[in-house]
Amino acid sequence: MADMTHDPTADGLDLIKAALGPKGILAGEAAAPLLREWRGRWTGRPCLIAAPATTAEVARIVSIAADHGLAITPQGGNTGLVGGQMAMNGEVLLTLRRLNRVRKVSPLDNSLIVEAGVTLAEAQAAAAGVDRLFPLSIGSEGSCQIGGVISTNAGGVNVLRYGNMRDLVLGVEAVLPSGEIWNGLKRLRKDNTGYDLKQLFIGGEGTLGVVTAAALKLFPRPREKSTVFVALKSPDAALKLLSRAQDASGGGVTSFELMSRAILALVFKNIPDTRDPIAGEHPWYALIEFSAGREARLSALVETLLEDALRADEIADAAVAANEKQAADFWRLRHSMAAAMVPEGGQAKYDVSVPVASVPDFLGAADAAVLKIAPKARIIAFGHMGDGNIHYDILQPVGIAREEFAQAAAAIEVAVYDAIDRFEGSISAEHGVGVARREDIARRKQRAEMEMMRAVKNALDPKGVMNPGKML
Amino acid sequence: MADMTHDPTADGLDLIKAALGPKGILAGEAAAPLLREWRGRWTGRPCLIAAPATTAEVARIVSIAADHGLAITPQGGNTGLVGGQMAMNGEVLLTLRRLNRVRKVSPLDNSLIVEAGVTLAEAQAAAAGVDRLFPLSIGSEGSCQIGGVISTNAGGVNVLRYGNMRDLVLGVEAVLPSGEIWNGLKRLRKDNTGYDLKQLFIGGEGTLGVVTAAALKLFPRPREKSTVFVALKSPDAALKLLSRAQDASGGGVTSFELMSRAILALVFKNIPDTRDPIAGEHPWYALIEFSAGREARLSALVETLLEDALRADEIADAAVAANEKQAADFWRLRHSMAAAMVPEGGQAKYDVSVPVASVPDFLGAADAAVLKIAPKARIIAFGHMGDGNIHYDILQPVGIAREEFAQAAAAIEVAVYDAIDRFEGSISAEHGVGVARREDIARRKQRAEMEMMRAVKNALDPKGVMNPGKML
Repeated sequence: MADMTHDPTADGLDLIKAALGPKGILAGEAAAPLLREWRGRWTGRPCLIAAPATTAEVARIVSIAADHGLAITPQGGNTGLVGGQMAMNGEVLLTLRRLNRVRKVSPLDNSLIVEAGVTLAEAQAAAAGVDRLFPLSIGSEGSCQIGGVISTNAGGVNVLRYGNMRDLVLGVEAVLPSGEIWNGLKRLRKDNTGYDLKQLFIGGEGTLGVVTAAALKLFPRPREKSTVFVALKSPDAALKLLSRAQDASGGGVTSFELMSRAILALVFKNIPDTRDPIAGEHPWYALIEFSAGREARLSALVETLLEDALRADEIADAAVAANEKQAADFWRLRHSMAAAMVPEGGQAKYDVSVPVASVPDFLGAADAAVLKIAPKARIIAFGHMGDGNIHYDILQPVGIAREEFAQAAAAIEVAVYDAIDRFEGSISAEHGVGVARREDIARRKQRAEMEMMRAVKNALDPKGVMNPGKML
Repeated sequence: MADMTHDPTADGLDLIKAALGPKGILAGEAAAPLLREWRGRWTGRPCLIAAPATTAEVARIVSIAADHGLAITPQGGNTGLVGGQMAMNGEVLLTLRRLNRVRKVSPLDNSLIVEAGVTLAEAQAAAAGVDRLFPLSIGSEGSCQIGGVISTNAGGVNVLRYGNMRDLVLGVEAVLPSGEIWNGLKRLRKDNTGYDLKQLFIGGEGTLGVVTAAALKLFPRPREKSTVFVALKSPDAALKLLSRAQDASGGGVTSFELMSRAILALVFKNIPDTRDPIAGEHPWYALIEFSAGREARLSALVETLLEDALRADEIADAAVAANEKQAADFWRLRHSMAAAMVPEGGQAKYDVSVPVASVPDFLGAADAAVLKIAPKARIIAFGHMGDGNIHYDILQPVGIAREEFAQAAAAIEVAVYDAIDRFEGSISAEHGVGVARREDIARRKQRAEMEMMRAVKNALDPKGVMNPGKML
């Protein structure tokens, strides 16, 4: 009795299991956290969960997948916000967690080679261990992994000074959709010998291959820091202050985070042990961090700067952190903002960027458009003003049912997107596309750009092995 | 009597001429400088020289070319070093010189939008006009054009602090091989909505489209500067000093240029009105520039740094520029180095990069290999030590005929390339591929990487319209 229906994918799965052995396949309890998006928004349904331990094993898995009609979804720390890391349609979920070696630390090169499964915090620690700085810093740094940080081109609070992840990658090692290993792990500051292919993998959301290791840029550790919390009348005043601070410090502003009173009030309400650094209530605030080398006299610089800004009516009040504890308290306010919104009901959240100077006008236009649709909506705006990147969130009005608010969500989205377009902005500044924004970019990007993206995808992954249904 | 042979390219040329009018077609005297590579190494033989004045005209030309079997070679300031800008095989030579408008200067955004034909010096001036810095600086800045600077991902003397051109581009507008205009001119610091396609045009050497305009990053202008000339025992001492200077200044080292006594001696010999800033003869020197914001006390920092370096035996002597004139004199030595070699006969020149910490070992290995082949060769090494980028040039030995030296050149090239490979370096750090290094990269790059490059080229330019025979 011959089995006449033959499924090549079943053979592929058997081959992958055989190649990895029992330690390389996850199931049951161990697998559960990999199948659940952390906010519960998406659920993974992979056909297999593979946990390779080496680049060669990753290559073997991808090669088998390519030959047997299987698809692959790579996953890092599973902290992504747009669902790019979820295997939702029977893909092989490939977790990089066992590729967790620090391969090389070179302080004289200011470089670091780590594997994809090393967490961001571990990479920061490896740099600190040789008295260097790896500057990228985001809320999830304890669990997000370098492979994911690269594949989503993560941003965070130090972009103003050091750039996004894209700016911090010297080279990548990746397994291509064919299963071949590309050794692009160069530690060079300059290399003009053809297209800079690593750029396609950075922010590529796993659609062109699996990043297995990377060479990262390190920096001198700042020897002086100054952290300031200021009260402001308006985003426009914040813009002027940013420009003044950048000029005075010669580009020494590491972070410039804007926040409205509305979000700060929610922090004080919902997060224990937080308190206002500045007396009274002000409509806007900014958290600013300066850093410098030795003998920089940052305190004198900051003092003069704040005096000048007060005199120019750019700030209403200011608190300079007297020590590291106080600086950490300031930062805790900023880092608590996402959590402070959770108890407040339904939320429509947007990760907007516009040209830096357009932030005030964008906020004015978006607020007006949203309030026209939902006059009682609570608008929360905060984020990386220095990069033109605002987390623009609309909270369910008090006393209105979650369902009622949800009905206005589609109209609110159109209003916010239209305001973004008007200021030539981005509908996803740092979170990426994944499944969450996939239809939006297809609808809103120039057709020629979408065609180029699809042409690149088809050229490098003609069989559609890598993370289907994401981004494109 | 019907003409049975019909050449569609002739129709295409007629259409281009009609589209541009007489002002848009160059010939005779006006055309001559565009046909000659500035060192006389390559000669252009285009079928037509088109000088469009707008992006729409560029699009029209490319569209006609795509429809009529013509190829296009874009040309900027014709200062390239690898022949990428030469139309050597009957292409339409497309000069961008008439696209020379500064479209938008936004000091509060720290951004600048310029067309491709604006010179680098004009872009720098537009930034300075609003009290900002556009930091890229190269020898040819008076004549090279932004489109070319982007297409070759130029480097220069400020890369250590500000990055290569790739790091300074926020967005590009380009005409695609189909003739469509891609409006990628965003002025955003963060945008994660798909593959970062502009990266393919940066350093793409005109093989994927014509860059017609770009949005560039501006920076605060440094308020303090310090320029130092130091004498050193060895490249290894330079490496230690670089690390010390970076640490002390918190990344405030703008330039760190290494140079051997051999090249400095040629400057004193062949360039009028130059003199040694430091008494005695030392095997190596470095020119270092620091910059900072206000109240930075750079002079105190530099003084302490040099004292510490002297005590640690990292430097033998130092001269700190007392004023701008003296700083300019120091820089003139550095900028005269290429010219100082010209009267010295045959030269084999390499634009090498290796990981920064490998510069000393690379120099040792390369010198040994070259001297084995040509024991009397004069080896000249200088360049951007801070980026691991060394201009490594071998001069004809004194008293040996140019022809005899040329015979050794092939063996020398293999020796230099092998040393580069050994230290995981690049055979073209900042000059690019063009025609000069095309066969070299095909031979030396990983096969998978060459295949990805060809796949991208074929996907985005299936008809082969753009700059055929260059890079790939």
